[in-house]
Amino acid sequence: MVNLLPDPIEAEGWVCPAPLRDSPTIVMGHGGGGALSAELVEHLFLPAFGAAAAGAGLGDAAVVPVGGVRLAVSTDSYVVRPLFFPGGSIGELAVNGTVNDLAMAGARPLVLSTAFILAEGTALTELARVAEAMGRAAAAAGVRLVTGDTKVVDAGSGDGVFVNTTGLGVVDDGVDIRPEHARPDDVVIVSGDIGVHGVAVLSCREGLEFGTAVRSDTAPLHGLVAAMLATGADVHTLRDPTRGGVAATLNEIARAAGVGIEVTERALPIPAEVRDACGLLGLDPLYVANEGKLVAFVAPEHADRVLAAMRAHEHGRGAAVVGRCVAEHPGMVVARTGLGGTRVIDMPLGEQLPRIC
Amino acid sequence: MVNLLPDPIEAEGWVCPAPLRDSPTIVMGHGGGGALSAELVEHLFLPAFGAAAAGAGLGDAAVVPVGGVRLAVSTDSYVVRPLFFPGGSIGELAVNGTVNDLAMAGARPLVLSTAFILAEGTALTELARVAEAMGRAAAAAGVRLVTGDTKVVDAGSGDGVFVNTTGLGVVDDGVDIRPEHARPDDVVIVSGDIGVHGVAVLSCREGLEFGTAVRSDTAPLHGLVAAMLATGADVHTLRDPTRGGVAATLNEIARAAGVGIEVTERALPIPAEVRDACGLLGLDPLYVANEGKLVAFVAPEHADRVLAAMRAHEHGRGAAVVGRCVAEHPGMVVARTGLGGTRVIDMPLGEQLPRIC
Repeated sequence: MVNLLPDPIEAEGWVCPAPLRDSPTIVMGHGGGGALSAELVEHLFLPAFGAAAAGAGLGDAAVVPVGGVRLAVSTDSYVVRPLFFPGGSIGELAVNGTVNDLAMAGARPLVLSTAFILAEGTALTELARVAEAMGRAAAAAGVRLVTGDTKVVDAGSGDGVFVNTTGLGVVDDGVDIRPEHARPDDVVIVSGDIGVHGVAVLSCREGLEFGTAVRSDTAPLHGLVAAMLATGADVHTLRDPTRGGVAATLNEIARAAGVGIEVTERALPIPAEVRDACGLLGLDPLYVANEGKLVAFVAPEHADRVLAAMRAHEHGRGAAVVGRCVAEHPGMVVARTGLGGTRVIDMPLGEQLPRIC
Repeated sequence: MVNLLPDPIEAEGWVCPAPLRDSPTIVMGHGGGGALSAELVEHLFLPAFGAAAAGAGLGDAAVVPVGGVRLAVSTDSYVVRPLFFPGGSIGELAVNGTVNDLAMAGARPLVLSTAFILAEGTALTELARVAEAMGRAAAAAGVRLVTGDTKVVDAGSGDGVFVNTTGLGVVDDGVDIRPEHARPDDVVIVSGDIGVHGVAVLSCREGLEFGTAVRSDTAPLHGLVAAMLATGADVHTLRDPTRGGVAATLNEIARAAGVGIEVTERALPIPAEVRDACGLLGLDPLYVANEGKLVAFVAPEHADRVLAAMRAHEHGRGAAVVGRCVAEHPGMVVARTGLGGTRVIDMPLGEQLPRIC
């Protein structure tokens, strides 16, 4: 995307540049975790970062060797709207979301940094409530909040409370879990009901209240992952299907690993309330964000063992086998419908529900 | 600040809470790095985080033992306006600022995470220019950009480009540099001209253009720190005087260490252009942000050695002794004026120039 760049602005006499009004611009979908997000990373960020980002990939966490240990690093900003919704708030998301990105790399989460961008005029009580939620979630997940930063932007330039958390964890010896490790015949397991978080936030979003009993599933998943790994099974790939939902996650893994994925639609655990709300709103639950679920790719001979360990854990009680990897149609995700047909599950372009996390 | 909290909103029937209109609110100064920022951390964040933040302090970096090494972690969000200014951009600040926070803990910076919050409608060319600046700055500083995140908020909810970077570095054995280590008789050294960054940004800010030749001093300082430490001198405390300027930095250290600080006004390296611009705008250069300078507190018997090492380094050529620590008036910073009098250098409440980094 170097051709996008105008002439260097740092020439002899420095001139404050005018905004570029005639350029292609950022759209909501660039933040949706789908194809547009991936394009932004591959075609803008990585080329622009150049050598400094050599080896950086599209994964949710990087693994960096430091002093004899493999350190997992993951960063996420949270811009969910509204700040509080049934079952949680931006505070729980900011802790659990980053804890989960570490857990999906097989890491034990240790510490988080927290950085706030606050709009002038934000109520201190609202901020305190967010911070208390973070403190509770961190204590529950067993991670420490070790350092932080606060910036304030003028009202109109920011939107209440944006939270960034960056997490550090340690990947134990022998653990090597990544998207590209999925392989044909792997069994695909989902840890429980899908679509819950997105519907819970939507139920509370201004102008879209439709009175639902659905609560966000936000939860830390590293304990569940530890229970799965303790079985000694070959867990090849883990991913939490947040933005873009299960559909985006499966497509990412199919592409990264060069495998095809077949999903059995009837096997997908979708609660009736989520199905109803999605029907009403014209959404597909496969594309709706989750904040307390994971998708696992496991060697077929170990699937039963892993499934049993998951069902014995509080965050995996609803675990179900939903599909398998195939050697056919690499990079493509296909669903077997209830009627015996098949349909392609596309990579979403952006996110059906912007600002869901 | 628990008394600020309203009743828990998570009761039997969940009700989406209305905004709290009658509460004290966030003001620009809460992000200024002065007394209001410290108050927010001490009276809101730390109590709200509770046990999860036990041991966390007000330092710019935390040091965490992991696998036999002491890992420094620092996070900062950058919201500077405008994005581009004489001598740099938000991209250089986002890299150098976090590198410097690590360096001020005596750490060797290794990797950064990068997280963007973008407003819908931001020009891709502008974003690419920011990312290229980050790539160049990271390469120059010898740090790798290992993982990232992008969120997009609707136009009107965000303001172009906000960047968070979180940095990791390693603190070598025997190095233990912190604000509370300053002690009476320590010599206070500044690494060069002060007030430059703030004036450069201001010169470019909408409505305040006054044609100046001042360019931001943004620079990575870990090489300078390494040169200082290589002398074997007792360097007790280091700090980069960003938001709130040298005045805020000296006050923080005086309080943290329980020492008094005496500054000789005439010894402060303030370029004529900065002095003129500050005069015009009614600003005090001592309170104006720097992005490529450090303040060092050094044992008196080692001060000459450290000063010589600093002056031999490209980022310390203008290094000067500007004062010393005293046992009197602990927690207070006093300047000896050119006329032989003294004046108190107060902790700034907020920041004279909001959104300077």
